[in-house]
Amino acid sequence: MGGRVGLIFVKLGGSVITDKAKPFTEREYVIKRLAREIHSAHIHTGLRLLLGHGGGSYPHIPANQYKTYLGLIGEDSRIGIALVQDAAARLNRIVVNALISEGEKAVSIQPSCAAVSRDGRIVSWDLRPIRLMLNLNLTPVPYGDVSMDLSTGCSILSTEELFRYLGLKLRPHRVIVGSDVDGVYNQDPKKNSAAQKIPLITIENVNSVLPSLGGANNIDVTGGMRSKVLSLLELAKMAGVECEILDISKPGNLEDALNGKKGVGTIIRKA
Amino acid sequence: MGGRVGLIFVKLGGSVITDKAKPFTEREYVIKRLAREIHSAHIHTGLRLLLGHGGGSYPHIPANQYKTYLGLIGEDSRIGIALVQDAAARLNRIVVNALISEGEKAVSIQPSCAAVSRDGRIVSWDLRPIRLMLNLNLTPVPYGDVSMDLSTGCSILSTEELFRYLGLKLRPHRVIVGSDVDGVYNQDPKKNSAAQKIPLITIENVNSVLPSLGGANNIDVTGGMRSKVLSLLELAKMAGVECEILDISKPGNLEDALNGKKGVGTIIRKA
Repeated sequence: MGGRVGLIFVKLGGSVITDKAKPFTEREYVIKRLAREIHSAHIHTGLRLLLGHGGGSYPHIPANQYKTYLGLIGEDSRIGIALVQDAAARLNRIVVNALISEGEKAVSIQPSCAAVSRDGRIVSWDLRPIRLMLNLNLTPVPYGDVSMDLSTGCSILSTEELFRYLGLKLRPHRVIVGSDVDGVYNQDPKKNSAAQKIPLITIENVNSVLPSLGGANNIDVTGGMRSKVLSLLELAKMAGVECEILDISKPGNLEDALNGKKGVGTIIRKA
Repeated sequence: MGGRVGLIFVKLGGSVITDKAKPFTEREYVIKRLAREIHSAHIHTGLRLLLGHGGGSYPHIPANQYKTYLGLIGEDSRIGIALVQDAAARLNRIVVNALISEGEKAVSIQPSCAAVSRDGRIVSWDLRPIRLMLNLNLTPVPYGDVSMDLSTGCSILSTEELFRYLGLKLRPHRVIVGSDVDGVYNQDPKKNSAAQKIPLITIENVNSVLPSLGGANNIDVTGGMRSKVLSLLELAKMAGVECEILDISKPGNLEDALNGKKGVGTIIRKA
């Protein structure tokens, strides 16, 4: 395992911290509870944390309206860039405010002003500010955002894509991806009660698992569960890090995981 | 003149867009008016704009409380970093929101996550995202912020310091520094009605002018008029760009300046 012991990446999924059915609607009390769980575990374990979050019903609204994920496709694409960045940063302020209020020394990281992508994949990002923050045991908080893209003009960076790039460079020893389902299922568990959870995904079983995973749902401009699993598996392979997709909408799950509990959700690792 | 014709830097001073006497108090209608003037001139001239703003009564409050400008001086310094970044970014959202509402394709630039300083001076900053934004005629909006500092741990970056670094790399053809006084005076014009405006500062007269300029007032953690003039003169010398300090609290002044009017305030140039 190539992980730097003592650094954990945590994702707060957009579907957890916002109501995806209602534009620009954050879940204030959920965010507050998660901030409390994170700070409690951070104090308890002394680990370094990097905390990413999705955009949910904030940036996904303009990103869908202007199809920002397709690049510069028309005259309106440029206003779409501005609106996506603004919406993503507004939600980030809410999350960072909540973290600071609970005592966490959280600092925003705006990907659109630091990373550059090509066809939606990050190709450059000067991580010195983030490394210096982690050295001070500050908690950097990057978030799903628009990017300047060398190929398409603009693109959307999911938290998984941020984690893929950051993970290869910063080499965390663990990645916890907080979702509103308790792992990866062979069918949509919200639609089919016979859906079964897949406890472990590796390079050995991924090909048999993938066909059962859906693509993006209507509001998800970042590719849905299928692309999330592929990004995390790439990270698991390249950085040798164990990832876990976990239901953090259940109180206590994130804190338990940060304190060392494993296997409650779906683990994604190399082998 | 080494300037790239067609690119103007504009600063919206913290004392203009906030009430420095009241913590966390923005001047909503002033910001809205300035956004309207900027967008109108942007449309009219077709120039590229980079728009920085000061922090005023937002980040200056925690920056003073935790003496963030002195670096990591105690256990509380780290929470100070988080609070300064949060306050600076909150004001930035208000400014960017107002710009977008007026039709400007404005995109935040968070210096603390992209620039690294040493003893308060920026030593590295990957400007590719900003260059790509300017190429699309988006309006990047950096702001006075905290920084990770290689020497002192943390520091405060004024808009002038941002402009000094950005100016050397991006080479604007003009820099407009919007203030609440109509230029540089030989005494504080708010305290002494006999104060006289200095119409032009160059390397020839700067040494006779500087002694009359005050240092920081109580709330200004970024060094006051003296350090502003020195930063702008350095920029004028190194990048061959003409800077002007101008009273943008007077309606129309900023729009006129953007449309080409010069000399209403104090001009700072090499010779």
